Order: sequence, then C-alpha cells, then structure tokens
Amino acid sequence: MKALVYLGPRDLKYMEVETPEPKADEVLIKVKAVSICGSDLTGYKGESAMRVPPLIMGHEFSGEIAKLGENVKGLKVGDRVIVETNLYCGYCADCKAGFSNVCDNRKIIGTTMKAGSYNGAMADFVVVPAEKIMLLPDNVSFNAAALTEPLAISLRATKHAGDLKGKIVAVYGAGPIGLLTMQCAKFFGAERIIAIDIMEDRLEMAKKCGATEVINSKDDVMGFTRKITDGVGVDVVFDAVGAEETVNGGVEIVRNGGKVVWIGLGAAKVNFDYKHAVCKEITFYCSYMYTTEMREGLEMIKTGKMNVEQIITGIYPMSEGPRIFEELASRKSKDIKVILYND
Amino acid sequence: MKALVYLGPRDLKYMEVETPEPKADEVLIKVKAVSICGSDLTGYKGESAMRVPPLIMGHEFSGEIAKLGENVKGLKVGDRVIVETNLYCGYCADCKAGFSNVCDNRKIIGTTMKAGSYNGAMADFVVVPAEKIMLLPDNVSFNAAALTEPLAISLRATKHAGDLKGKIVAVYGAGPIGLLTMQCAKFFGAERIIAIDIMEDRLEMAKKCGATEVINSKDDVMGFTRKITDGVGVDVVFDAVGAEETVNGGVEIVRNGGKVVWIGLGAAKVNFDYKHAVCKEITFYCSYMYTTEMREGLEMIKTGKMNVEQIITGIYPMSEGPRIFEELASRKSKDIKVILYND
Repeated sequence: MKALVYLGPRDLKYMEVETPEPKADEVLIKVKAVSICGSDLTGYKGESAMRVPPLIMGHEFSGEIAKLGENVKGLKVGDRVIVETNLYCGYCADCKAGFSNVCDNRKIIGTTMKAGSYNGAMADFVVVPAEKIMLLPDNVSFNAAALTEPLAISLRATKHAGDLKGKIVAVYGAGPIGLLTMQCAKFFGAERIIAIDIMEDRLEMAKKCGATEVINSKDDVMGFTRKITDGVGVDVVFDAVGAEETVNGGVEIVRNGGKVVWIGLGAAKVNFDYKHAVCKEITFYCSYMYTTEMREGLEMIKTGKMNVEQIITGIYPMSEGPRIFEELASRKSKDIKVILYND
Repeated sequence: MKALVYLGPRDLKYMEVETPEPKADEVLIKVKAVSICGSDLTGYKGESAMRVPPLIMGHEFSGEIAKLGENVKGLKVGDRVIVETNLYCGYCADCKAGFSNVCDNRKIIGTTMKAGSYNGAMADFVVVPAEKIMLLPDNVSFNAAALTEPLAISLRATKHAGDLKGKIVAVYGAGPIGLLTMQCAKFFGAERIIAIDIMEDRLEMAKKCGATEVINSKDDVMGFTRKITDGVGVDVVFDAVGAEETVNGGVEIVRNGGKVVWIGLGAAKVNFDYKHAVCKEITFYCSYMYTTEMREGLEMIKTGKMNVEQIITGIYPMSEGPRIFEELASRKSKDIKVILYND
C-alpha cells in the first residue's frame, strides 16, 4: 500500500510500504479521510517525543472496514467507522480511576508513546483493535467523522469548566481545537465568547464557530476583555495555545476566583505568574485527550449539535502530504484544518 | 500606647504611638495575643508590596473589647473576641460572587492593600469594625484564638481539594500553614499524610499534626512518594511553600489526574513544567485567604477538632518584637509559630 512515512525532521515521504494484516481481534480499515493535527506538525518538525521515525502518523480518521481478523464479531467488511485512538491498558490505577486518557501504559494510534509506536492512518490502510471501533451513522460524512477526535479533545476541555450558562468565556487560539471549543462553549450556553488569535482569517472562522467578539492578540486583549466585563474579567479562559504569553495572559484576563482550562501544548516550560494566580484564587484545569468524549462527540455531530466540517479549509490527496505538511509547518499555508484522502 | 511599628526593611521599632479612637460602628480592642505570620516576615524584609511603612502589622490576633464606638450594639467592654481581618467592600462583583477573599477594594487589618494601609494588632490596642468581631467561647484561649486566622487559610485550602476520605496527600512545607493543613487533611479523612520540609524539627512537629510519613526535601521525595503509592503518585498535593522547586515537585509527585492546591506565596514567578502538568491532566486550585472559614475554624477549635496551640513554639512580650522578627527573618530562630503578648 501507499503511506505517508515520517522518516525524520521535515522528512515525510509518500511511499510504498507493506500492507498490514489484521491479527486476531483486529480489523483492517481502508482510510477514507485523515486530518492533520497540530501535534502531527510538531512531530514533522522533529519537536515531539511522541513521533519517533519511522512512523506513519494520523490519529484523526475515518474509513471502511476492509478485512476482519479472527474472533471479530459484530462488524462486517464495508462498515463505515471511526476509531478510538487511545489504546489504554485498562488495568492500571489510572485506568481504574477513570483516567484512561493519561494511562502510562497506553499506545496511541499514529504516535510513539513509552509503550512503543503504533502506525496511524496516513496510509491506504490501518490496522486497529476491533473493540476501539465506532460505527458511523449514515448522515455523518467521512470528513466530519475524522474530526470526532479533535472534537472530543475540545469537548472534554469544555466540560472541565463546569456550567457555562450565561458565562463570559475567552478562547486563546482559533485553530481547530480552539474553534471546536468555541462551538462546545456555545452549545453549553456561554453568553459571550471572545476569540483571541493573531491571524485574522482564523478570527473570521471563529465568528462562524460561536465567537461573539474577536480580538487580535497584537491588540490590547486585557483592555478589551475588561471593557466587555465591566472591569471584572472573564469567567472562564480556554487556552488552546499553551504558550507563555497565553498562560500568563489567562491569569490576567480571567476574573478573581475564575477558571482557566489549559489544553494547548505550545510550550514545555513557561515563566508563570504564580503569585498573581494564587492571589486571584484561580482554578486551573488541565485537559488532555479524552475518555468518553469521542462517543459523546459523535452523537453531537450526528444530531447536528456540532458543525465540525465548517472548519475544514483544505482537502487534498494523500500523495500531496509532503508538500502540505511543509507548507503548514512553515506557515506558508493559510489552511486551518486539512483533510487528506486516498487518491 | 506602645506598638511595634514597621518603619522600613528590617527596621521594626517598639515605640510610643497615639492610641487610636474607635469611630462610629468601630470597637477598640486591647490586644491579648498576636501571632507572627510568614507574610509579616516577608514584609519585615521589605519584600512585600502589602507592607508599606510606616505600618503596625498583625492580622492574627485576639483580645478584649476596651471601648465601644457610637452605634455599636450587641457587644460590651470586656468581651473576649477575635476579628475577621478581611475588610472587603461587599459591593463589587467579586464580593457578590462569593469571592470576598479576593475583593479588589478590600483593606486587610495589619497590611497595605490598593485601598490603603490599616494598622494591625502588634500594639496595645487596635481599632476594628464592630461587624467583624466574633465572640470567643470560654474554652478557647487567647493564644489558640489568635491562630484562628491561619487555620482559616488552611481550612479553605483543604476544602478546595474536595473529599479526602481514604486519600493519600502530600504537604510541602511544615510551617504553620502546612501544619494546620495537615490537621485539616487528617480531620477530613485523608488516609496517609506525607509531610515534606527541609527542617527536621518541623518534620517532628508534622508528626504531631497528623503526618503519617515525613521526608526531608533534600532526600528523594519522588522515589519516596512513588514507593508509598505503588508507583502511582499521591492523590492530592498541598503546596504551602510556593517556590519553584515545590511547584514543579507537585507536578512530579501527584498522580495522573490528581489535584494540587497552591497556597504558599514563596515566589512571584516560577519556571513551570506546564506541558508535563497538562499531559498528566492535573487540576490546580489556588487558595487565598478565607471567606467563611474563620467562623468554621473557630468552631473547630472550640469543639476540639483542631489543636492549633500545639504549633506555638514561642511566646514573647511585644517589646521583644524587633529581636524576634530579626531572628526569624535571618533564620537564627527555630521557632515555628510565635505569639507576642503585651507586657
């Protein structure tokens, strides 16, 4: 089969590789759509410990079942599916405490974890454990379905903030995760949603995703948010960037006693305004991956509560992957969310 | 009257000042006991924006009513009392949202806030608003009563962590706030309490306050906590220090999906292991001052649920204040909690 193989920093090749075979309890999926995640780009640039070459990336995808391994029941060739990409162990203290998202023994499809690498969906086919499969409703397109995974990330982050009804929230970053977080915040009843990004076209997209106000991060974000909130500060900040400026910006713009949800993984370390945060009695919720949220997210897409497809700005054949990755990584592309499909 | 007046960095003088007069709705209190808070020491060293000279410090105190201002009802001369030192405005959005502890308009007795300075209880007398007074039960000594305020700080911090029944917690810092947090954690049902400090005599005191294990921070805290928790990490970390080492130490020793409560104000900024924290999906609760916790704390002292007096290691006359402050600030003193009384 053909696959996009990550061979090293900024070295991605569309090449012939051996088609994988499903073992017992596994399924071979013909990939119909796979989207590029920010973490894939970080990996492509050689900046992620979670992408060790050689690796086929791709953990946001949909497809059709092409072949069943032994013992697989309840599924058939041709079924339209998505896959929970978190292959947690199920036995450790984290899994048993409901934190399968941070299981130290897990593999994640399309990434490299402590437990090893697992080839992903930037290929004609991908093998997955049968138990991780979710059947797609007829009214959910392959492209929309591929975005169930990032929606799950945003959904979990939004749930951390608790009841958003009537609240004023700010979202740092109008990339895919930020945009889907805005959709979730709107769905959960936030009264005003302030989108903050440095790119104007992303702020335009933010308006379509529920942002009631947008501000360029080059402008006076503090003054803007204070004005909207009568000097009080916003109730909740979602940080879908995770850079030093946004982490400390969140401390500034959130109200005393407010909530900040950290989602973005922009920086490993930040020079953090610790004392200021404590004196404002902020609560910081880290949010990572998902547990039940892929199933919940798929239901929200199926019932029309989320319009994930609107953030897709580019749909390209897999063979163009090397060019697309390089353009995204070097910021030559203005695409927000890109889908790759097989030629 | 005599008072300890903070005149500038490391310049504290026991001197004659004018005895204050209670205005309408105010009360003059004859100070019987006032304890030295870590923040007073930071102020003494000239390292706090919240202690601007000239200022009489002292916000942890008890006394007897000496004189009533006009309009004061329900109180009489001779009443044994403590005082809620947080003079919040009651009108702002923070106060109305239940966050009087972080009201931007507040004064705090014995400190300097944006709204101005308010002389505290390191003196023969202090004037306070009558509405802030709480009557002392007969069985609560003046010394114990003075520690109601730091107990309230620890109590609020402990409450942030939610249900502690059966949980394994670690407390960074076995100073007064850390020690009282251990007492609270024990009261709320924590199964194991690991005290971490660099001073052995404080670790000894920690054992009296509920610590089931102690470890010197010079030793392998990570290995120690992992061993106790079968490799999982502790459920909850209370950081009563707030230095870079403890903030990042908390990220290390807490379990995936665990909770960290930030209380200590050791550092203004810390080089924070942000990404590691997000990938562990930790929740960080900042805890600052108190709202309802002084009343709750006094009830706990009265009913014997808390033994605050045992952390008092030194009781000195107010006139010795300058020497005591200097010894504490230069770490020549081994005292943990010091009470000053009037000669």
